[in-house]
Amino acid sequence: MSNNALAITELKALLGDRLSTSPSIIDLHAHDEAHSPAAPPDAVAFPENTAEVSEIAKICHKHGCPIVPWGVGTSLEGHALAIQGGITVDFANMNKILQVYDEDLNVVVQPGVTREQLNTDLRATGLFFPIDPGANATIGGMTATRASGTTAVRYGTMKDNVLALEVVLADGRIIRTGTRAKKSSTGYDLTRLMVGSEGTLGLITEITLRLQGQPEATAAAVCEFEDANSAVSAVISAVQIGIPMARMEFVDAVSIKAINDYSNMDMKECPHLFMEFHGTENAVKEQSEQMAEIAAEFGGGGFQWSTKTEERNTLWKARHTAYHAMKATKPGALGITTDVCVPISNLAQAIDDSIEDIAAQGLTPFILGHVGDGNYHAALLIDPNDPEGMKTAVGIAHRMNQRALAVGGTVSGEHGIGTGKMKYMTEEHGDAWSVMADIKRALDPDNILNPGKMVQVN
Amino acid sequence: MSNNALAITELKALLGDRLSTSPSIIDLHAHDEAHSPAAPPDAVAFPENTAEVSEIAKICHKHGCPIVPWGVGTSLEGHALAIQGGITVDFANMNKILQVYDEDLNVVVQPGVTREQLNTDLRATGLFFPIDPGANATIGGMTATRASGTTAVRYGTMKDNVLALEVVLADGRIIRTGTRAKKSSTGYDLTRLMVGSEGTLGLITEITLRLQGQPEATAAAVCEFEDANSAVSAVISAVQIGIPMARMEFVDAVSIKAINDYSNMDMKECPHLFMEFHGTENAVKEQSEQMAEIAAEFGGGGFQWSTKTEERNTLWKARHTAYHAMKATKPGALGITTDVCVPISNLAQAIDDSIEDIAAQGLTPFILGHVGDGNYHAALLIDPNDPEGMKTAVGIAHRMNQRALAVGGTVSGEHGIGTGKMKYMTEEHGDAWSVMADIKRALDPDNILNPGKMVQVN
Repeated sequence: MSNNALAITELKALLGDRLSTSPSIIDLHAHDEAHSPAAPPDAVAFPENTAEVSEIAKICHKHGCPIVPWGVGTSLEGHALAIQGGITVDFANMNKILQVYDEDLNVVVQPGVTREQLNTDLRATGLFFPIDPGANATIGGMTATRASGTTAVRYGTMKDNVLALEVVLADGRIIRTGTRAKKSSTGYDLTRLMVGSEGTLGLITEITLRLQGQPEATAAAVCEFEDANSAVSAVISAVQIGIPMARMEFVDAVSIKAINDYSNMDMKECPHLFMEFHGTENAVKEQSEQMAEIAAEFGGGGFQWSTKTEERNTLWKARHTAYHAMKATKPGALGITTDVCVPISNLAQAIDDSIEDIAAQGLTPFILGHVGDGNYHAALLIDPNDPEGMKTAVGIAHRMNQRALAVGGTVSGEHGIGTGKMKYMTEEHGDAWSVMADIKRALDPDNILNPGKMVQVN
Repeated sequence: MSNNALAITELKALLGDRLSTSPSIIDLHAHDEAHSPAAPPDAVAFPENTAEVSEIAKICHKHGCPIVPWGVGTSLEGHALAIQGGITVDFANMNKILQVYDEDLNVVVQPGVTREQLNTDLRATGLFFPIDPGANATIGGMTATRASGTTAVRYGTMKDNVLALEVVLADGRIIRTGTRAKKSSTGYDLTRLMVGSEGTLGLITEITLRLQGQPEATAAAVCEFEDANSAVSAVISAVQIGIPMARMEFVDAVSIKAINDYSNMDMKECPHLFMEFHGTENAVKEQSEQMAEIAAEFGGGGFQWSTKTEERNTLWKARHTAYHAMKATKPGALGITTDVCVPISNLAQAIDDSIEDIAAQGLTPFILGHVGDGNYHAALLIDPNDPEGMKTAVGIAHRMNQRALAVGGTVSGEHGIGTGKMKYMTEEHGDAWSVMADIKRALDPDNILNPGKMVQVN
């Protein structure tokens, strides 16, 4: 029997029906939302508590069998694909909100809780969890990939919003990192070492998150610009003045056209900023008005803001369906998404260069950006049956990554490394990448935790 | 010749006069602001650039000679004491502000730059670096200890304000962690692993910091309360409502009396909150008024706020001299400072318990707190020639730490571990402490970087 088969036999004894080798279950865990080749695990485990996760790790550790954690599979970079086989640990049954500490503005959850589930559950408390990557991802997955999204400009990324963790190590030991205190200067920051480690250092079994009070008022605003440069320059100005924007999204002209067509709207076909402000009634009014002034300085027109829930929802629905709107312009096409982040002073140039490069390759340059953070995405629509088109998209993404690195940026603002970005790790991190491998060897000497991802240990 | 002597011979050849074995220089580096026994290094090195730091590390690595980094010696826990001898690396000559990126709101500095030096230099840019631990510490020291202080409630701690680092490893390799992009999800977060590692994982030679725009207006406010509980409850309420306080300091009644006497002021001798708000003119007015309403709900009286620079300076000068004011009440006494941080819902009880315990031991319960974060300090005034008194102080601090741990808090909110808090690492971190040791072994296998601190590797 192979090592993995030996592990499966023991796991079956531990978990019974909750260890599945059914082809349909395996197939469900062989793909995520990236367009990577299928990578089926040998079996899928559905633990119900930390003790079971620890037992799974011990069994896999004994047999040198890979373990790959799984949330709901919304990864865009192949993080959770079992590229070396082994056991996928699906946290679907560990989806409890364990304790809300409303006075402390924090909450303890299991990794399988989804973002929307958490916010629905919190509604009565007047608190909310602000990180919004778009997808209804699990908190475990968001933690493991250091996710962020439209609200990071105000509330930070997962690294800023995870206070403490419970983690099962490669050998099954259970550790706790951090505390529920808001700050601490005791010891190495293992919490933030685990956040973004993509399942390669431990299996996250419990997460303590910071929460925010629901703002008294929320204003949404929209503004038209002549070009990306003007829009981004307005954002830089607003950031410097310190307008506490809660969302600041750039949408280019062709994406606006796609959204108009898809959502039956009639926005002017030019670059836009979509914005949101959180605060008191007075504060969001003042912020909106300040932003309108700044936008006007950079030629921004048609500035509109509103605290009405309906208008706000229309705007963000349009933004959130942008990807589908783009895809609708080319039925049957694959959407390849890029994700770079640069110092904000380089952002306008970076976006301009990307648009030029994409157009020069004969593709439509759909650009969406979390511009308050210097982070933007291009969606490249490619015929899945055209290998040349795929090569073109890879080339565009590669040049975008190169340009980001050249100005001191990063090849991934929020989507992570997975299988897709491994080839950039040396270039972005230099010798620091080998230090990451040293840490991996120290914590997972047999390389059983999501092997083949994040670091090179052999 | 001993290993250290061999290292010193080579270092002398490298650095010339900038490697000192003069007794006066060594004595200056044998003490910090903690009351630990003197711990003299064998020599003190004054490198001028990263390449020299790397050479120092290579030489010390070859000979197994300890290396201890040194900023300006404002540590309160003995971090920078050469408890196993070796070479203290004083970064006094590496005190350049290398590059201000004003559009990106970040700056690259050498580790020997002090906080006040940086803010003086930034004045013309309209930007500032917000972290204020009180002491005019170096940025290198603040990074290595994960410092924070009065403004952390708004701007976070060093972990939130360091974007990227250059670090010399134990074997002399130079790595860069992070980028100047505002966020990234590529790789293990080595930046935050280094922040707070107290010189045990690497020597920090360059720091990229986030900056903030100078607020248009700043308001200071002060309010009187009947007891700690009411003051803290008002703060919890303000935090939940989301008032973006920039400082929120608790000062107890006996400390107010000491400040009155020392600074010739006439505040009512009762617990106070000292506050600051940053924003537009309208915003700080609204925040001050909101806070006044909340304070009134909890019996707060005499609420006063002002945007006048003079009044603000008077208030914060009073707060910043509080420690000296306390010491002036008992001339010749040593001041032992404690530093715990608890979930904010436990803060009022924690402060009450501390006051009760200190008073029961016959000492005056001076309490100062960064209460928006759940962090507070007691200053215990002890006759240095009274060993019983010292034992009493240690006992009080110990019980305070125990109570913080019991409610899910931490034994150090911001002062770090150094030599003073090593005994709590097991209790606070459990098995996670051994994971820290695994990481230390991976990065510094010969244990030459600030040995004896932070982890137990033997």
